Amino acid sequence: MSILQGLRRAVQINGSGTATIDHDRRRNWSELAARAARFAGALAASGVKPGDRVAMLALNGDTYLEYFYAAPMAGALVVPLNIRLAPPEIVAILNDAGAAALIVDRTFAPVVQAIRPQLTSVKTIFDPASLDAAIAAASPIDPIEPVSGDLYGIFYTGGTTAASKGVMLSHGNIVSNAMNMLAEVGFGSDTVYLHAAPMFHLADCSCTFSVTMSAGTHAFVPRFDAVQAIEAIARWGVTNSVLVPSMINMILSDPSVASLDMTSLRGVLYGGSPIAEAVLRRAMATLPNCGFIQAYGMTELAPVVTMLPAREHVTDGPRAKRLRSGGRPVHTAEIRIVDEQDREVPRGTVGQIVARGPMVMQGYWNQPKLTAEALRNGWMHTGDGGYMDDEGFVYIVDRIKDMIITGGENVYSAEVENAIFQHPAVAMCAVIGAPDDKWGERVHAVVSLKPGETATEAEIIGHARTLIAGYKCPRTVDVRTGPLPLSGAGKVLKTVLRAELRV
Amino acid sequence: MSILQGLRRAVQINGSGTATIDHDRRRNWSELAARAARFAGALAASGVKPGDRVAMLALNGDTYLEYFYAAPMAGALVVPLNIRLAPPEIVAILNDAGAAALIVDRTFAPVVQAIRPQLTSVKTIFDPASLDAAIAAASPIDPIEPVSGDLYGIFYTGGTTAASKGVMLSHGNIVSNAMNMLAEVGFGSDTVYLHAAPMFHLADCSCTFSVTMSAGTHAFVPRFDAVQAIEAIARWGVTNSVLVPSMINMILSDPSVASLDMTSLRGVLYGGSPIAEAVLRRAMATLPNCGFIQAYGMTELAPVVTMLPAREHVTDGPRAKRLRSGGRPVHTAEIRIVDEQDREVPRGTVGQIVARGPMVMQGYWNQPKLTAEALRNGWMHTGDGGYMDDEGFVYIVDRIKDMIITGGENVYSAEVENAIFQHPAVAMCAVIGAPDDKWGERVHAVVSLKPGETATEAEIIGHARTLIAGYKCPRTVDVRTGPLPLSGAGKVLKTVLRAELRV
Repeated sequence: MSILQGLRRAVQINGSGTATIDHDRRRNWSELAARAARFAGALAASGVKPGDRVAMLALNGDTYLEYFYAAPMAGALVVPLNIRLAPPEIVAILNDAGAAALIVDRTFAPVVQAIRPQLTSVKTIFDPASLDAAIAAASPIDPIEPVSGDLYGIFYTGGTTAASKGVMLSHGNIVSNAMNMLAEVGFGSDTVYLHAAPMFHLADCSCTFSVTMSAGTHAFVPRFDAVQAIEAIARWGVTNSVLVPSMINMILSDPSVASLDMTSLRGVLYGGSPIAEAVLRRAMATLPNCGFIQAYGMTELAPVVTMLPAREHVTDGPRAKRLRSGGRPVHTAEIRIVDEQDREVPRGTVGQIVARGPMVMQGYWNQPKLTAEALRNGWMHTGDGGYMDDEGFVYIVDRIKDMIITGGENVYSAEVENAIFQHPAVAMCAVIGAPDDKWGERVHAVVSLKPGETATEAEIIGHARTLIAGYKCPRTVDVRTGPLPLSGAGKVLKTVLRAELRV
Repeated sequence: MSILQGLRRAVQINGSGTATIDHDRRRNWSELAARAARFAGALAASGVKPGDRVAMLALNGDTYLEYFYAAPMAGALVVPLNIRLAPPEIVAILNDAGAAALIVDRTFAPVVQAIRPQLTSVKTIFDPASLDAAIAAASPIDPIEPVSGDLYGIFYTGGTTAASKGVMLSHGNIVSNAMNMLAEVGFGSDTVYLHAAPMFHLADCSCTFSVTMSAGTHAFVPRFDAVQAIEAIARWGVTNSVLVPSMINMILSDPSVASLDMTSLRGVLYGGSPIAEAVLRRAMATLPNCGFIQAYGMTELAPVVTMLPAREHVTDGPRAKRLRSGGRPVHTAEIRIVDEQDREVPRGTVGQIVARGPMVMQGYWNQPKLTAEALRNGWMHTGDGGYMDDEGFVYIVDRIKDMIITGGENVYSAEVENAIFQHPAVAMCAVIGAPDDKWGERVHAVVSLKPGETATEAEIIGHARTLIAGYKCPRTVDVRTGPLPLSGAGKVLKTVLRAELRV
């Protein structure tokens, strides 16, 4: 069982159906599969051998999807690179992976040109022109059929520190995640999935292979941009996407969302953090046909292990607290909360979240010691703290906390952000604890305003006071007009905001 | 990844939710798991060792479900026995499997008593009394956690000939099927699944493990009976079940269906044969909330490889022909139609249906030669003929055909049955070809009437004439008042009807 089976299924049941929409270019499933087989032929012709690593550094587009299938057809492993990496980090990862080939798009071709001399293993670099020529010239490959345990690729995590690790995921890992997504989300040949989050990241990959297995349509925007995403949804009848809460908020804050037809949107999967209630309420009002589904996971888990389905997104009553959770274990994931000795702790007690099941990675590339440590006793140790309630909902406290202790009181940043988001001028918002001589920490908000809007620090604080207790209100507000710093996956980088305060 | 993980998930997310409803006895998921662990302890205490086979011969009930989990907890394999077997067949299968223990219910205890001396491997027989006592006395076992490739059980096919074969299915096979069912059907903790078809059979097992993985509720009737099934649906709010078309027809023909509340029923999975259009129309009218889903498969495929979802059950327009198909490959099944040399044939051409994927059996127990033959070239050879259309729908001609050639004309029995079913007095109906000196074969119908209804041969023929061409109408009709002969899975045994004609 490999990810190639899903591609064959799409061709078999929907060969003439639209596989990809990239700007004005559309390909059907038969065309895409044929092109991937020639792409694989081009890789083989360039000297790529089974087991080799083929990296890609590119914005979203149909070529990225073709790469996801072409590399394994040639027996090679994919190594999708984080587009936020600095050049020295790209060099380090390519050399660590021992990549034999690198595929690069127009945007990143200059960067790759500059680092070329430092790459110790890369023999071939394909830019858009040379890739197109090679595909046109190549014969389709007779694909090597991987088995479930064969590696599909190496996915580097983080990448913003020297400790970036290459997560080895097998075909079985990817298919296992895809089946859980099909069971929890449901895709079909009428799905139009928008790749709006970056395709190198497992968050977007969490749906990529399920959409193909369902013979749905992949649509692309090169990188996340609220206006482009909105236009894509309206133009192509997008039904599903993966976003992070800050992206959802940017879409909802954009004026064009009111003037274009968003009614095709049925399901938005989000992750990385719980959604602020105010954002969710606004999303439900603006996109009434759309269900919101939260997912929790990590690259090492291929990636999803818990999900909070649309029906659990209620903002009132006793179930509303579940919005702060990451949901319950997906069907084939086993989740436990354990203490330092890996003993399961009682429900409601905070411990480390560990996971077991067919989605757990094969290990870290060339890091047997780190692998053994992460997978000790047969469970993936996430490093995330959390607790589980009596009904199996998992609360990730390392996210809930972003907790600020101010004057002895606990303040949850999500609650404060929720209040500030309801101010009509606010586009983005992050609440952190700032070091404070008097209070230990003080509640500090960093706010980005919508274009053309104004609001002062005092107005924001006054607005918050109408909604939440005084001790929870920000004591200081940094009002900005530009966007807040975002991670490659589109999350607000609170670490950056905290570092700014410490300077 | 084993089937035990699904049980742990049910306990974790819905421990106090209803797991089983057997007459007036209800157990929640925590109770059921604890009982299964003690059941496993009782098996171990009786001498059952890891790798041993533990057989069961029983009607449906909560003990059957507990057995499905207790045996693997003790490291043993399940061997569920067909309840239609004759005593010599039971002996042959138990000895072939080398079963170490046998669990038997009240109904089958006398049969087992009679064959006891011929059983060469069985060391312990548990009847209801001794099983209850053993469970009460046992300590819960600390379960052995199987891996995906470990055998879950041996499922004997057919059993009505000497050539009964033991199909070895692994935990991975069963979980793979369960995930496909979750993706195609969808179950949740609000599912109430009625075990109405016999639990030993893979048709019913196709949903058993998905329902547990979803922490839904299992309800039971001891064996299929239209009135009992109807009452169970109304009393317990049954949402889903697996039936064969003849069972659906019996339910629809029973007067109580009109007086009791069937509105809880959301999804009925059926298999074994396509559904007659007249039956489907009546079903849709009588059960408007209920979707009908066809599945095709076999024990060797754990069991489902193609499905026709509810949305494809349309009786008018160009898509109506799909009702005659078995649907399209499920997500992880790969289906090809091949010629005698295992070469794929063009769409629309009849060949043998072969399947590949994580649901394919591990082989036939103690039959390496049969195994190699069935699994040659890496594909399960079903022995069923069929073709695939351009959109991936698979038509199983060995079922469509039940084709009768009469006076040089091809008559499809399903079409004739469809016409006869529309007669208000008809409860069951099967159309076969009877040897005929003049016509080669003549169209012959065997009809069973509803209680209290009457209809003559001439009336049935006259009714058919108003609906289908003259050459398709039955020339002879055998009108009966009792039920037609059914297989263990509830299918009308046309082989028996044909044999009667040949006498």
